[in-house]
Amino acid sequence: MARLALGIEYDGATFCGWQTQPGGCAVQDHLERALAQVHGGPVATIVAGRTDAGVHATAQVVHFDAAHERPESAWVRGVNTLLPAGVSVLWARPVGEGFHARFGARERAYRYVLFNHPVRPAILAGKVGWVHRGLDVEAMAAAVRHLVGTHDFSAFRAAECQARSPVRELRRAAVERRGDFVLFDFRGNAFLHHQVRNMVGALVWIGLGRRGPDWLAELLASRDRRLGAATFAADGLYLVDVRYDAEWNLPQTRGRVPFVDSL
Amino acid sequence: MARLALGIEYDGATFCGWQTQPGGCAVQDHLERALAQVHGGPVATIVAGRTDAGVHATAQVVHFDAAHERPESAWVRGVNTLLPAGVSVLWARPVGEGFHARFGARERAYRYVLFNHPVRPAILAGKVGWVHRGLDVEAMAAAVRHLVGTHDFSAFRAAECQARSPVRELRRAAVERRGDFVLFDFRGNAFLHHQVRNMVGALVWIGLGRRGPDWLAELLASRDRRLGAATFAADGLYLVDVRYDAEWNLPQTRGRVPFVDSL
Repeated sequence: MARLALGIEYDGATFCGWQTQPGGCAVQDHLERALAQVHGGPVATIVAGRTDAGVHATAQVVHFDAAHERPESAWVRGVNTLLPAGVSVLWARPVGEGFHARFGARERAYRYVLFNHPVRPAILAGKVGWVHRGLDVEAMAAAVRHLVGTHDFSAFRAAECQARSPVRELRRAAVERRGDFVLFDFRGNAFLHHQVRNMVGALVWIGLGRRGPDWLAELLASRDRRLGAATFAADGLYLVDVRYDAEWNLPQTRGRVPFVDSL
Repeated sequence: MARLALGIEYDGATFCGWQTQPGGCAVQDHLERALAQVHGGPVATIVAGRTDAGVHATAQVVHFDAAHERPESAWVRGVNTLLPAGVSVLWARPVGEGFHARFGARERAYRYVLFNHPVRPAILAGKVGWVHRGLDVEAMAAAVRHLVGTHDFSAFRAAECQARSPVRELRRAAVERRGDFVLFDFRGNAFLHHQVRNMVGALVWIGLGRRGPDWLAELLASRDRRLGAATFAADGLYLVDVRYDAEWNLPQTRGRVPFVDSL
């Protein structure tokens, strides 16, 4: 019995979310079917972050226990030949039994990619959020600083969120314009359900001038989700990094979105 | 009766090519249905370049004759609300009766985006070609210069090509690496069926070291399609520009691929 960690990239628009579904349409369903074929027996994966339908990942991490040894190339190239086009295994690495993809994750990073252009995207449909009116990115960048630190993020928490505590440490938060895109970056120990999409929704209100930058501090302090903006579309959201203790020696995840950062 | 020109962007992976099909799955079918609804009567479009299934466009141009006048916003935002997610109207402009989207096009430009990385793309699946082995881009850049000029391009012409003459003027041809991508740019008066994909296939052979750069000159001179490489995948091919005489005063098309050039 050996424990393995895998790095995974997927286009969330082509699946019904990470977590296994009766219809078998989830990323987990496709991945476990392909892993089982290579493994020659059932495989149960544990994931770092269960993303919702429509949310993408460039650096998702899972672990599973394999009864039979296979070369690394079998877990990467072999599994990829069995997966549908929207999901790929990026790397595979043997890890000790103490490794846990979910509970061992020390930090997660999300990037939201917004297309800010009068005409909606066609080639990037499903890959980016879209706002057709010009956004005041300076106001958004000033506002987002209010969120950094250890806070009760109840004002950005989905009603269905199952986390025991609403307190999270947001270590980095930034908004910047790059050409027709507005990029939102968040890095923290963990995130509540819909936290990033709710933060983006509030920031877009500020960018549109519906609220001033300091409203974000008030909203955070209110701990009241009903005062915030609507949950923003999943389309532009990417899980771009998951960090573990250095002892596990996992490959550096890219921490980026391919069409924004591969150049 | 007024003639209108439209600029169109589409994700070729979600349609069965440009040209109308009995099943109604072509870009033309979706566009003409939406235009007919806004127009209040049937619309027949003429296109600058009939792209194959899987081929994308960021700057396709069509024209059609409208019996009823509508404001420009109806032809852009109105039509876009009726179109599926993978296609958008970028602009609409009244033109004189002498305008013809196909016969009036003086120059066309295509860009091929290749992902050169050991692991296949997941988020950009269908949007980029893929070669997992490292490519010698210098050799490809040297080779592609042999193609510039007015030549008989029979060596890169599909068997089904219906053009009367195999002679085309290639005005610009370039290959460059940008991060994990290799970009191929071609600009010319017109292109034969599969010409760009066949040129890319031959250049990839050179990049892999299967042939030297000067083989491309020999291949061109042979005028024999059977000596060339397989037609490369449609996935990474984008029609990025169509130019008309300045008198038509059409909006500048972007001439670029959004995830490569919007930054």
